[in-house]
Amino acid sequence: MSSHYKKLAQRFLRLSHLEHATTFLSWDQQVMMPAGGNENRSKAIAELASIRHELLTDPKVFDELLLAEQEGLSEVQQLSLAEIKVQYQQANCMPAKLVKAQSLATSRCQHEWSSQRSDNDWQSFSVNLKEVVALSQEEAQIRQSVDAERYLTPYDAMLDLFSRGDSSPMIDDIFNRLKSDLPPLIQSITDSQPSKIEPKGPFDLEQQKQLSLTLMAGLGFDFNAGRLDVSSHPFSTGVRGDHRITTRYRESEFKESLLATAHETGHASYEAGLPADWDGLPVGQARSMSIHESQSLLFEKQIFLSDGFMSHFFPVIQQYLEPMRNVTLSDYRTQLLHVAPSLIRVEADEVTYPLHIIIRHEIERDLINGAIGVDDIPELWNQGMRNYLGLDTRGNYADGCMQDIHWPAGAFGYFPSYTLGALNSAQLFSKIRSQYPDWNERLAQGDIQFITQWLHEKIWQRASFESTSELMVNATGSPTGADSFLTLIRERYMGR
Amino acid sequence: MSSHYKKLAQRFLRLSHLEHATTFLSWDQQVMMPAGGNENRSKAIAELASIRHELLTDPKVFDELLLAEQEGLSEVQQLSLAEIKVQYQQANCMPAKLVKAQSLATSRCQHEWSSQRSDNDWQSFSVNLKEVVALSQEEAQIRQSVDAERYLTPYDAMLDLFSRGDSSPMIDDIFNRLKSDLPPLIQSITDSQPSKIEPKGPFDLEQQKQLSLTLMAGLGFDFNAGRLDVSSHPFSTGVRGDHRITTRYRESEFKESLLATAHETGHASYEAGLPADWDGLPVGQARSMSIHESQSLLFEKQIFLSDGFMSHFFPVIQQYLEPMRNVTLSDYRTQLLHVAPSLIRVEADEVTYPLHIIIRHEIERDLINGAIGVDDIPELWNQGMRNYLGLDTRGNYADGCMQDIHWPAGAFGYFPSYTLGALNSAQLFSKIRSQYPDWNERLAQGDIQFITQWLHEKIWQRASFESTSELMVNATGSPTGADSFLTLIRERYMGR
Repeated sequence: MSSHYKKLAQRFLRLSHLEHATTFLSWDQQVMMPAGGNENRSKAIAELASIRHELLTDPKVFDELLLAEQEGLSEVQQLSLAEIKVQYQQANCMPAKLVKAQSLATSRCQHEWSSQRSDNDWQSFSVNLKEVVALSQEEAQIRQSVDAERYLTPYDAMLDLFSRGDSSPMIDDIFNRLKSDLPPLIQSITDSQPSKIEPKGPFDLEQQKQLSLTLMAGLGFDFNAGRLDVSSHPFSTGVRGDHRITTRYRESEFKESLLATAHETGHASYEAGLPADWDGLPVGQARSMSIHESQSLLFEKQIFLSDGFMSHFFPVIQQYLEPMRNVTLSDYRTQLLHVAPSLIRVEADEVTYPLHIIIRHEIERDLINGAIGVDDIPELWNQGMRNYLGLDTRGNYADGCMQDIHWPAGAFGYFPSYTLGALNSAQLFSKIRSQYPDWNERLAQGDIQFITQWLHEKIWQRASFESTSELMVNATGSPTGADSFLTLIRERYMGR
Repeated sequence: MSSHYKKLAQRFLRLSHLEHATTFLSWDQQVMMPAGGNENRSKAIAELASIRHELLTDPKVFDELLLAEQEGLSEVQQLSLAEIKVQYQQANCMPAKLVKAQSLATSRCQHEWSSQRSDNDWQSFSVNLKEVVALSQEEAQIRQSVDAERYLTPYDAMLDLFSRGDSSPMIDDIFNRLKSDLPPLIQSITDSQPSKIEPKGPFDLEQQKQLSLTLMAGLGFDFNAGRLDVSSHPFSTGVRGDHRITTRYRESEFKESLLATAHETGHASYEAGLPADWDGLPVGQARSMSIHESQSLLFEKQIFLSDGFMSHFFPVIQQYLEPMRNVTLSDYRTQLLHVAPSLIRVEADEVTYPLHIIIRHEIERDLINGAIGVDDIPELWNQGMRNYLGLDTRGNYADGCMQDIHWPAGAFGYFPSYTLGALNSAQLFSKIRSQYPDWNERLAQGDIQFITQWLHEKIWQRASFESTSELMVNATGSPTGADSFLTLIRERYMGR
């Protein structure tokens, strides 16, 4: 009855095995590999990408898709088939020539970016970026043409690669609300918050590592099915049975490593909670970046930064980090919850962070849709930073429009998922709080199971069987919005 | 002119990229992976093997080989083509059904072996082993039939997979010499050697690691192009630019970790010294296991255990390992050079080691050629241990014929390369000594460059452009023999 569907499923299982190889070769490249290994590693990863592309765009897939749609599939098989079709279309619509040109242009742009950024050399960087943008515009137009009814603009087709189902009118709506509400809120918070407290280290690196491992265990991480390591930028990756996260340590402060550990543990928990029966198939994968980021931010911001969990975990910190033994819980809280407009997105607090995203979203949207050019970026960046955060970035490209690797990598449409994730995280957590009125007492006991069980049922086990918006509506009663985020922010930063 | 040859070369470069993936996924599996990752990892590695097999046995390869042979190839291209042909034939002669049956049988046999060995359960183990042997016999007959003039027996065709070019008459000849010379030599050594000195630890594990790293640096290892890690069995793997070796540490003694480090550094140095221009092609690869093992043993036995190097390195050991500060160089030497017949091959000293190999070689040769059956193994093992080493293994299967993973893995024909490697190592080193009469003084200064430069020129850079026997003749004036080994052993153990 379903032999064509089964053939497709077989092919996607093969693809998942090749993806497994890429996943761990990339992890190794970032965590273990000596510098001398880069050339051969890049060739091996490119070879795997090329074999995966061949398997995914094999003309047989098209025929099998047509025939499978005629088979009497069960409801879940139909959902699975639909996700297979999306992956096929997303891969197949792209001409090989364009993929190759993008690969070369983004490699060059990313490689040269890191020294150009150090040299604050916008002029040279913009030459490479123009090439990347031109190719991404071409990509966006092709992707839009695949489903012109669904994608209102070329940029919407790019958004869909990361925040599947979130459209630009919906994003503009939400971001406009944040643009108007956040700046005065930031002003109120910075006017009334306690003065900043600097950590007084040094904090022993090995003790920080033990502390991170203890935090992970407390958040439910299974070390028989995963690892913690160090990399220059924290990330999370892996497959069922082997979830790997990274963090980074500095002797001068420990906050960053702990927040990253909590964050990446959230990503890993989502992956570990996906339904095992659907491993390897598109419908069994995490829904979208905006849902993924909601899970990591829920662990980082809603659990780790909650009053309850702080009071539970503070004695653990004091146990591992000797210099913290003379610090009070209240000072630790002040240290963690300081709000201040700043130039660098990845160092921003959760209140100012969305404004960093909005600046990037508005620029990349207009770039991809052809309303502006690369030469316009520095001025628009400066306007955004001035209007939203009151900062001047003129001439400072390195800490301005050259700070992120996303654009050099051609990942236009990715940025909004960070803030959509933050909003989803707050919305999901508000719902959990309403169902567990004693949530803060539970967290104060170190109990997080009531949260992970809820997420397991409402999000993790549902994988890609529902759209992003269906997931949010079924879990919280409404699609992604800004209300819960603004409420929780006000409570956390104005309520003290 | 050489377009077919170039197509073949392209294909083998693709294969080498996939092999790169397998190499590092396997390294990770043994060094980094949590237990939960095994199922998905095994599937990914099997998928890569299947894709490599498809690429290697594609019918186009046969046509391209025929056509390439007609092209006006340069001499080195002809050598390269010949090695491509061998790899093609070795892969292509095996029916897919047999390969799959072997994969299942060896997986089961290896998996169950480890608990069966703990339980000393020969009965259950032998059931699985019979299946593996039957399939290996089939394999050996097929491989023999590919070149019946070259392979005198089925076992010869298996030998050729590991000790390329070394035949069983040549091996029998050498092994007969060792069988008659070694037992009386062992008797003389054990009669006259100083009493065994036990190490007095504990030896700090982190200090042992630093000591291993220092040893590697002293042996010329480049840490920008490699790593040292820990695994349950030491091994060496990697590709150009990324050579990875492992060792293992115990608090109670440090000799094993250092010897393993020296050994694996030898393997890695050979790989790093192969000609870069031929990366990815069969002719650019290491010649054979009997040459590979000669390089590791040259580093371990000829360099590390030499009087000169010991006197150089002993103060370094004392610097890192506090308990060694009260030990004399002479006692350290006695500790390292103790000879005693023992049950376990991997723990054997270099004098008794060849006899362990000869027992295995005689059994596996007769097994594969059908002269004996699996049920005969325990009795033959016991006879061998009694005759060659004076030990009784009756009823002790775990420390007898069940101690190695080679047979459960179906690697019949592998064992001789260990001893051929030991002989080659001694023969190469004798030649080096004759060319550098001040070799021991140089080693006492920590200078090993005169050795590595010689090996680089005579062995490493020649990759697979010469046969094993050509390499030995061109480097030392004669093919593999036992003379140098016996001479050096007598000098080291009787000369004191």
